[in-house]
Amino acid sequence: MVSANQPLLAGLRQILGQENVIATEDELIVYECDGYVVEKRVPDVVVFPTSTRQIVETVQLCNEYEVPFVPRGAGTSLAGGTLPVGGGVMICLTRMREIEEINLRDGYAVVQPGVVNVHLTQRLKGTGYHYAPDPSSQGACTIGGNVATNSGGPHTLKYGVTVNHVMGAEVVLPDGQLMQFGGPCEDTPGYDLAGLFVGSEGTFGVVTRVWVRLTRDPEAYRTMLGVFDTVRDATEAISAIIGAGIVPAALEMMDNGIIAALEDAFHFGFPLDAGAVLLMEVDGLEVAVDEEANRIESLCEQNGAREVRSANSPAERQLLWKCRKQAFGAIGRLSPSYCTQDGVVPRTRLPEILEFIQATGEKYGLQIVNVFHAGDGNIHPILLFDERDQEQTQRVIAAGDEILSKCLELGGSVTGEHGIGVEKVSFMCPPTAESGQTPEGRRYLFTHTDVDVMNSIRVVFNPMGLCSPGKLLPTAGACGMEHIERSHPGRQAAM
Amino acid sequence: MVSANQPLLAGLRQILGQENVIATEDELIVYECDGYVVEKRVPDVVVFPTSTRQIVETVQLCNEYEVPFVPRGAGTSLAGGTLPVGGGVMICLTRMREIEEINLRDGYAVVQPGVVNVHLTQRLKGTGYHYAPDPSSQGACTIGGNVATNSGGPHTLKYGVTVNHVMGAEVVLPDGQLMQFGGPCEDTPGYDLAGLFVGSEGTFGVVTRVWVRLTRDPEAYRTMLGVFDTVRDATEAISAIIGAGIVPAALEMMDNGIIAALEDAFHFGFPLDAGAVLLMEVDGLEVAVDEEANRIESLCEQNGAREVRSANSPAERQLLWKCRKQAFGAIGRLSPSYCTQDGVVPRTRLPEILEFIQATGEKYGLQIVNVFHAGDGNIHPILLFDERDQEQTQRVIAAGDEILSKCLELGGSVTGEHGIGVEKVSFMCPPTAESGQTPEGRRYLFTHTDVDVMNSIRVVFNPMGLCSPGKLLPTAGACGMEHIERSHPGRQAAM
Repeated sequence: MVSANQPLLAGLRQILGQENVIATEDELIVYECDGYVVEKRVPDVVVFPTSTRQIVETVQLCNEYEVPFVPRGAGTSLAGGTLPVGGGVMICLTRMREIEEINLRDGYAVVQPGVVNVHLTQRLKGTGYHYAPDPSSQGACTIGGNVATNSGGPHTLKYGVTVNHVMGAEVVLPDGQLMQFGGPCEDTPGYDLAGLFVGSEGTFGVVTRVWVRLTRDPEAYRTMLGVFDTVRDATEAISAIIGAGIVPAALEMMDNGIIAALEDAFHFGFPLDAGAVLLMEVDGLEVAVDEEANRIESLCEQNGAREVRSANSPAERQLLWKCRKQAFGAIGRLSPSYCTQDGVVPRTRLPEILEFIQATGEKYGLQIVNVFHAGDGNIHPILLFDERDQEQTQRVIAAGDEILSKCLELGGSVTGEHGIGVEKVSFMCPPTAESGQTPEGRRYLFTHTDVDVMNSIRVVFNPMGLCSPGKLLPTAGACGMEHIERSHPGRQAAM
Repeated sequence: MVSANQPLLAGLRQILGQENVIATEDELIVYECDGYVVEKRVPDVVVFPTSTRQIVETVQLCNEYEVPFVPRGAGTSLAGGTLPVGGGVMICLTRMREIEEINLRDGYAVVQPGVVNVHLTQRLKGTGYHYAPDPSSQGACTIGGNVATNSGGPHTLKYGVTVNHVMGAEVVLPDGQLMQFGGPCEDTPGYDLAGLFVGSEGTFGVVTRVWVRLTRDPEAYRTMLGVFDTVRDATEAISAIIGAGIVPAALEMMDNGIIAALEDAFHFGFPLDAGAVLLMEVDGLEVAVDEEANRIESLCEQNGAREVRSANSPAERQLLWKCRKQAFGAIGRLSPSYCTQDGVVPRTRLPEILEFIQATGEKYGLQIVNVFHAGDGNIHPILLFDERDQEQTQRVIAAGDEILSKCLELGGSVTGEHGIGVEKVSFMCPPTAESGQTPEGRRYLFTHTDVDVMNSIRVVFNPMGLCSPGKLLPTAGACGMEHIERSHPGRQAAM
């Protein structure tokens, strides 16, 4: 128990100041989980650094005492990305929230890791630029957390995910060394370490500064709502739109289950009997968006759309997006608990996976609603349940597993943007003979060899396994890993 | 000398067939260098595999005999990327030239590494898709080589470099193990190994198959030529265009020196007294391109353009692009030899670096002409000389070094797209005390710590240093490295 480690605590207080260190049970409880509420683990200490220097010294102290540490942004991870699996010190970056530089001429900004995603775009208002990655949680999540999980969002379809917008990162490596990968200049030679760092889920160190690319605001938008009788019609319309060579700025689907909840919450006028609605947006030059919008409208109609409505004002567009981004909040009206899954399938397999989800819901006697990034094939089935009912909770877990296995079978993946965290580590590769049995029909993302290579790279950065143990890789700081770490305590690759 | 290694030779002939193994001096001489003609080294054997299996077995045999090996595509590297520094076996991939799959619905193709870049786009003709990365050497260079160097091209400005178009790669690791990084599905979780592999210049293994993203053909183009009295006016126009939020598909500059050579070769009607011309292209929807083209035209005029001409037919557009892409060929009319440099500066520093290049030319008594990707800040000064004149050759090397150091001083880099190869290894980090002195004023890309981290990752994939020694990293298989490799022969990170 680290909290009993008085010299470490005293050291942390000296580095960060008494007021920036939490170590009492009633305060620590706040940090027992993130958006993944299924697993809980109270950290031993939480620290709130306000400078890179404090992070360097904190990490160095953790190394000195061989205590695990885990960075945390806003704690919006849906996969337990910030769960302090090994206990130890949680480094909460929410007070590192300065936007250090905005360089419009060269098109980038330099931000601290605790800057809330939407705050950067708000700060850019009026400049003609914005920060493109826009997760649904953008009002809360931090850019440091986005870097860790390589976050996407509705506009990923046209503008790409976080890695496409990160030019560089300053990082405290797990041994306390400060490094910079990439930076304000494009085309850095050598291995693409900035790209490798993005999406490494905290296993390569703590990010302390990020160079992000700024995106020019489009001159014009057209935002439309397509109403369909069936999910299959809606997915066929999506394939037709993409197949016609149109790249919408966003192409989101919401099914009948969620329409009712949204209508109840926002009164937008969604037709309650529709099988699915598509939220579609095109952007670009004023002269071009009308033509694209017209083509989308006619493709929707050719694929059985009952109607296609246009947002007639910025306020209507705002409301439509509010519906989409707050859809998860609206679920609260449907059930006491819910579990959001995050799978990917090749776009052409969308009808198949959606039918499978419905069948799985029926098989397990669960209501499942869908709201997701249809253009990317990134599904978010939401399984409704009551967590006080143990038996029902087990059914939710089993149904989620079956859906994710099906995504793999269809050539997809078990996460599009939420990351592996602790939640999906068991999907990474088959268990070894000693550590467990393979459940029947269960599929995996990688082979043992694949994971060994990844682990070898993890060991280069994180040889002691102190930084973010238990995340992303089955052997990274999990029970098995501790053994590996102890028998190979140096910087030796475990490959 | 490997050619004296009869058991290895016999083994290679057994794997590949007698006719696919070259080991006689008069045939090997063809492979003594690539586009970087300054350094030469004849390989001991050249093999021409036609299947992945043959590559696996070749690499395994090299490991068995502890013989270095280096992959080679078309040999168009301008930085010695395929120079067999350590001798040994050259694995020439030009017979692996099958386009294995074209999947228009999901927007990707699967190609073997020896597929010539332009052949993929030619094969896609009529489908409405193309492969976006278009190096000037695209008529010869292979997609495997593009993956190794993360190639760009004129359309990089809008469409990105190779890494933005590679979804996955099948790779024979340096130990002979076959692996797949990424694949046809987007959003693969775990570390981004496909992204890490792209640009690793052959130091992580031999690519045997590539999943590339296909790009929809734009509905329309407008291609224009802006004529300017001075280079400074032309660069100001570029900044104005980018600053206005326009993302042209391409934005290329050619200076006065090269205009004469091009005019002589292609008779396009370039004004011989112009200080610089800009080749500018916008693409997109028919209704949008005219507006963008008009805006560009007026921005050029506001920045002193003497005239802005439009390509009035597809044939004229073709000819303009032919001029640009064959500019290097046209240089043959100016001097017996030339050295093409490849530097990057922040776009706003273009006038500064171009004036510095001119001054450096005067200082060393050399003619330097410029043709380059102006929109990316990626310069290609071409130093004209006669390689039979030793003293002049030395001046070319010194002038090139000064220009690249200046790029670093301005916040840029010593290579935008050609890679480090063997040519620019000395720019990676300062020499160690034992290995040499730092030339005065010389600047470096990285610190020793940065290079140590990269080297640690190289060792994960390439622990014996047999694959592509002497490339990219100062310690990777160079003299110093051999010592490191011999004292740490295992998979231990050298960090």
